[in-house]
Amino acid sequence: MDYTVPVQEQLFVLETIADIGGLTGLQAFEHFHAGDVEAVLEEGAKIAERVLAPLNRKGDIEGARWSPEGVSLPDGFAQAYAAYREGGWGGLAVGTEHGGQGLPFALSVALSEQVTAANMAFSLCMILTAGAIEAISAHGSETLRQSYLPQLVSGRWTGTMNLTEPQAGSDVGALRTMATPASDGSWRIKGQKIFITWGDHDLAENIVHLVLARTPGSPSGTKGISLFVVPKYLPNDDGTLGAQNDLRCISLERKLGIHASPTCTMSFGDEGACVGFMVGEENSGMKAMFTMMNHARVSMGVQGIGIADRARQAATRYASERIQSTPIGSTEPAAIINHMDVRRMLMTLRATTEASRAITYLNASAIDRARGEEDAMARHRAKGLADLLTPITKAYATDIGVEMASLAIQVFGGTGYIEETGVAQLLRDIRIAPIYEGTNGIQALDLVGRKLRLDNGEPVSRLLDEMQSFLPLAQSRVETAALVAPLTEAIGRLRETTSALQARDPAEAAAGATPYLRQFAVTLGGYLLLRQAVIAASRLTDGSDDPFLRAKIATARFFIEDVMAQEVSLSRIVLASGRDLLFALANEELSA
Amino acid sequence: MDYTVPVQEQLFVLETIADIGGLTGLQAFEHFHAGDVEAVLEEGAKIAERVLAPLNRKGDIEGARWSPEGVSLPDGFAQAYAAYREGGWGGLAVGTEHGGQGLPFALSVALSEQVTAANMAFSLCMILTAGAIEAISAHGSETLRQSYLPQLVSGRWTGTMNLTEPQAGSDVGALRTMATPASDGSWRIKGQKIFITWGDHDLAENIVHLVLARTPGSPSGTKGISLFVVPKYLPNDDGTLGAQNDLRCISLERKLGIHASPTCTMSFGDEGACVGFMVGEENSGMKAMFTMMNHARVSMGVQGIGIADRARQAATRYASERIQSTPIGSTEPAAIINHMDVRRMLMTLRATTEASRAITYLNASAIDRARGEEDAMARHRAKGLADLLTPITKAYATDIGVEMASLAIQVFGGTGYIEETGVAQLLRDIRIAPIYEGTNGIQALDLVGRKLRLDNGEPVSRLLDEMQSFLPLAQSRVETAALVAPLTEAIGRLRETTSALQARDPAEAAAGATPYLRQFAVTLGGYLLLRQAVIAASRLTDGSDDPFLRAKIATARFFIEDVMAQEVSLSRIVLASGRDLLFALANEELSA
Repeated sequence: MDYTVPVQEQLFVLETIADIGGLTGLQAFEHFHAGDVEAVLEEGAKIAERVLAPLNRKGDIEGARWSPEGVSLPDGFAQAYAAYREGGWGGLAVGTEHGGQGLPFALSVALSEQVTAANMAFSLCMILTAGAIEAISAHGSETLRQSYLPQLVSGRWTGTMNLTEPQAGSDVGALRTMATPASDGSWRIKGQKIFITWGDHDLAENIVHLVLARTPGSPSGTKGISLFVVPKYLPNDDGTLGAQNDLRCISLERKLGIHASPTCTMSFGDEGACVGFMVGEENSGMKAMFTMMNHARVSMGVQGIGIADRARQAATRYASERIQSTPIGSTEPAAIINHMDVRRMLMTLRATTEASRAITYLNASAIDRARGEEDAMARHRAKGLADLLTPITKAYATDIGVEMASLAIQVFGGTGYIEETGVAQLLRDIRIAPIYEGTNGIQALDLVGRKLRLDNGEPVSRLLDEMQSFLPLAQSRVETAALVAPLTEAIGRLRETTSALQARDPAEAAAGATPYLRQFAVTLGGYLLLRQAVIAASRLTDGSDDPFLRAKIATARFFIEDVMAQEVSLSRIVLASGRDLLFALANEELSA
Repeated sequence: MDYTVPVQEQLFVLETIADIGGLTGLQAFEHFHAGDVEAVLEEGAKIAERVLAPLNRKGDIEGARWSPEGVSLPDGFAQAYAAYREGGWGGLAVGTEHGGQGLPFALSVALSEQVTAANMAFSLCMILTAGAIEAISAHGSETLRQSYLPQLVSGRWTGTMNLTEPQAGSDVGALRTMATPASDGSWRIKGQKIFITWGDHDLAENIVHLVLARTPGSPSGTKGISLFVVPKYLPNDDGTLGAQNDLRCISLERKLGIHASPTCTMSFGDEGACVGFMVGEENSGMKAMFTMMNHARVSMGVQGIGIADRARQAATRYASERIQSTPIGSTEPAAIINHMDVRRMLMTLRATTEASRAITYLNASAIDRARGEEDAMARHRAKGLADLLTPITKAYATDIGVEMASLAIQVFGGTGYIEETGVAQLLRDIRIAPIYEGTNGIQALDLVGRKLRLDNGEPVSRLLDEMQSFLPLAQSRVETAALVAPLTEAIGRLRETTSALQARDPAEAAAGATPYLRQFAVTLGGYLLLRQAVIAASRLTDGSDDPFLRAKIATARFFIEDVMAQEVSLSRIVLASGRDLLFALANEELSA
């Protein structure tokens, strides 16, 4: 099943929604020129299409394999990793001071979409390594930074995040792994972690585990957690690799999907000799996690759009080729793309994926501006927007990743249920994304419980105002004027549910969190696609006849009329979901 | 992963929605007594829970295996099949004149739900055999009936349906398999069929293939298709098995799920000696298919509710046991069933499954009454209702089967993504159900294109009137009065979209078919749960304190406020989806 990177679409969204031109004007990104964006996307596309995508099914069938000597990946993965590493793709968004290329996160997100769509299992190794780089850059001592960053940035080493334990999943504060101080200033780690993505493998020389653990006498809960670097091989002072550390992958999970991404149970300190180095201050591990959270959660959203887009491509190609039945009003059998209900499915795939991509790239751009804006107030505002959007990006994009993969199977019919076709793998792979990096329920609670109340609700008010103030421009164009009324209504309803949830006590607000997040996402998606339609209309007026631009207008209309329209019901559901029903019900009734 | 048959719920829905008492009063079901319903459900539950459910995961892991000698099932399947057969479960709904037990279809549907939930792959063998029995009873000659029915009814032989060919999936009329007359009155079959469920296996002595094929000079399309019985072993006149027929399973598909259900590519007549016997008249094969269609499609819907219910049970059990995080407003970590967002998921699982079950049992009951009512007008009306409901049952129940299995995975979090847990298998298994036996897109087209126009729209008008006329009773009870307003609105909107689609030309109506079907299903589901809530309220008033009855009232409220509420948006989407957008879009734009 081929994958073609949608370079034109990525570029269009980077330009029109993420304002990549504006970003590259900031000093923080001075090493990068707006004119290079397309070339970078094209280069990334080569790796994604030619190197990573062809390995996707092989990785699924053969999977990562465990032996007492360690975990190995199917043939071809080491070569693909080498190609990726040698291209310098791992250090794109890392600052030049650490040997990276200092690209905006928004651009690295577009590249990450390419990698995920091509090979989601493979992409996780990159995302985890990027997280380790971020944690060590932001919180590590100078010594740690010098020892670890260049190797991670170059891709010679990879990284992992070790949070989950059997009793501590969503509740990170319940973890029990212990770190005790050693006389040389390092720590001895002891404990077991589960669900550790790429916890062991044979693609790189070393693996740098970032491990959350408690120190002796630390407070209970999340306040008593510290972060440690725990390498598989301990680096010598001269940078060469020394002894193997006392840690091992003791088993792999047999999962629904992402079979080529080893999900490890890791055991640290079986022999009492697992050496770790503290990152940042004692008991500040959760703070370090929070630093990475926006990046990591947006990266998970990117997986949703990558898979949704690959599913859309596959479905559209199949529908263009598969001849079956005579469309109503026709006399001859035709490709199923001509059947009304199939067109509806294809447009749903297209519009939903594009709306989600727009939200995700906007979010990434806000993260860039939160770091790179020269004015403190601008940085603060960008941070507020990034914080607000992150749970929406993560939850909506991963949910629609699952929904769109399933919808693409439907377009294929019986053929889609056969593994050989490849589209079933997309559903199996992406089903994890609404769960990891904070379940989507937790994202919704974060949105409603924290983000709506941030700065007295200023970020959400500002975004709603911005959405509304755009509408007159859309009203002024014949191609988009009819879409202004439903969007005006939708924004109004979003204001209403937002105020209602801000006023509710937290437990009551939690009852409406999930439908509210979806309401927010589809309304924001409708607005962002409308913005794109207005720009497309203006370029068409200027003489272009690009079907891509014509499709932008049709897609905005379809999304607003057929997908965003959910918001009418969702706003009712949010307002109805008081604590009375969900709280009043006894557990015995719920289980009856 | 355990499965417990929800006997109390099945009984309640059979009594209150399917009117099983009324059915057993009809002469057609004179051999069956209403008082036996519970005992039959309890007996079925034993097989489902103790024999079939424990094999479900083994069947998934080991799967059906092909060899040149034939297809074999994992250890234990033959024993389970023998236990099922010896219990006489295969011939439940078959008339006593053919050796069956003459039970109402509504009751057999409840038993089929048990079998599917326990082991969906296994259940398909039973469903296909029931289809073969139905086709031969309704259309076969006396000779065919005598040779085949007793063996199929007893379960000594099983049946299959052979429709699909590579170029003929949804478009059955495109098939090419040929049947040529032989001098002895039999036919010689030649062709290849794909996706043949339980096309070969080692559980029974013989396999009776029902094969659609063309005869020489037959008209093109569906008008030129005839139906044939093509047994694996040709029975001798004395009922013993004779020579092996010239047909074979040449390969098995590697599928996303239902691994223990062999999906065969069947080759008929490689040596020119495949013997078949015509069922019914030449060129009337599609008519025979249509006879079976309501039964078969309702049986597919049953799969959706079976899997949804098993997913609900697993999620509820897990949520009751898994301690994680402190609920908002609490001070101690608690089982996740106490978290608001988890309660929302569990209630969604419960309410959606129950709504879908109510629709499905009502549909089955209408099929019974279409056959068994003594008054011709009553039969005609029941037939109209059965025809109207069938596409709704099939599409809604199978769609929610997929959605609920996915939602149950979400309740499990990371654990749900691990195959060992068993809930991922439910998603993989049920994903085929929206596709086979007419894709859900085709169900929606059937509803809008045919069923709304049936008898000048009388069946749909009658159902809408019945829904509305119930509301005063619900209004009169304090427990349900508040639910009348949203249902009144919903019925009004359903009338509006129904009239709009009846007035549209078929191609335009097709554009709104899928959202209309969902709108219909959730509104009907809301009405049926409200009916149940009114009965539950009256029993509670009479002194019962059964949590099951209290849950019925809460579930109706949750469904109406949180699930049925979709209909507000769906009605807008139906009205918006004119042919202009979906038709105007050029294919190059759709693929851009």
